[in-house]
Amino acid sequence: MLQQLPALVTLLAVLLMGGTAYAVGSARARYGIKAPATSGHPDFERAFRVQMNTLEACVMFLPLLWLAAHYGLGGWAGLAGLVWLLGRVWYALAYLKEASKREGGFVLSALGLVAVLLMALTGVVRALLAA
Amino acid sequence: MLQQLPALVTLLAVLLMGGTAYAVGSARARYGIKAPATSGHPDFERAFRVQMNTLEACVMFLPLLWLAAHYGLGGWAGLAGLVWLLGRVWYALAYLKEASKREGGFVLSALGLVAVLLMALTGVVRALLAA
Amino acid sequence: MLQQLPALVTLLAVLLMGGTAYAVGSARARYGIKAPATSGHPDFERAFRVQMNTLEACVMFLPLLWLAAHYGLGGWAGLAGLVWLLGRVWYALAYLKEASKREGGFVLSALGLVAVLLMALTGVVRALLAA
Repeated sequence: MLQQLPALVTLLAVLLMGGTAYAVGSARARYGIKAPATSGHPDFERAFRVQMNTLEACVMFLPLLWLAAHYGLGGWAGLAGLVWLLGRVWYALAYLKEASKREGGFVLSALGLVAVLLMALTGVVRALLAA
Repeated sequence: MLQQLPALVTLLAVLLMGGTAYAVGSARARYGIKAPATSGHPDFERAFRVQMNTLEACVMFLPLLWLAAHYGLGGWAGLAGLVWLLGRVWYALAYLKEASKREGGFVLSALGLVAVLLMALTGVVRALLAA
Repeated sequence: MLQQLPALVTLLAVLLMGGTAYAVGSARARYGIKAPATSGHPDFERAFRVQMNTLEACVMFLPLLWLAAHYGLGGWAGLAGLVWLLGRVWYALAYLKEASKREGGFVLSALGLVAVLLMALTGVVRALLAA
């Protein structure tokens, strides 16, 4: 069951990206900010940054998650992924309310990211040494 | 042959990203908007939003496509991917002309996205239940 | 050993994204640009563009790298990936100093990108013909 965690985390990460994109669309409508503008009201601008930061975070996290899984650490990487995901959700919800509140979630997600980074690194180095 | 569709869709999605990046570079040159600026002319700003929206869409779509393929639904996911891709091309071309015209392509691509989301979800849930 | 290159390149690409994100955070602190703002000082704006361009480049490159690896060209794709990576690092460092200096790195990374694109394309076309 732990071996399915990377897939589950990936799916939930995509749903999180979808949620942050939805928040931008809602803020666009609420404050009458017409595309292609990406500024005009602080609430919209925070929603937009949350979406972009979530996107950046996913593009860094998902490749490491699957590298770790590829090297047989899928279960541990999946658990680290749940921590990362919790941090990203916390970050998004807090940042949507106030920019200064985004730190806690950021730190938690960074812990998850560093964990999968170390797993991926271990896997790559071991495979290089074995080759 | 259907099993090769996810790979083909992935390749075409990257070419679409390349095309939208090229459109930004062209608009930058045409309107004399020097990097790192990302505003200055409505045509440029629309091209820039098209590139970013395409990027966001790919980061959400590609992981789901490959999750679905991983769970044995590669053929169906590939077909949904062609629908998604058609929607994204339509969206990009329409949005480049006028922001208000982007809806049709968006809706079509959303259908493809929801289809692969449901496939990936089915695959993950089944695998979790079997574990 | 060459077969491990796509994994190594992926890991290094994520570290590069991390480095460019770190440069944005540093510039944010140095010039007192509070989130969610993404403008306010030319140095910050260049750092921000470097981060976003690196992100875009990775989202295009990594899928092609792994498609090529999937079709048995992992070693060659990994070598092309090292060229691409060198180009991206050069691009990032040069652009951080001055926008006009970003061209050399861009061209080098484009060579690496086109190489993996051709490998991925060859793989997909061959697999489609064989099916």
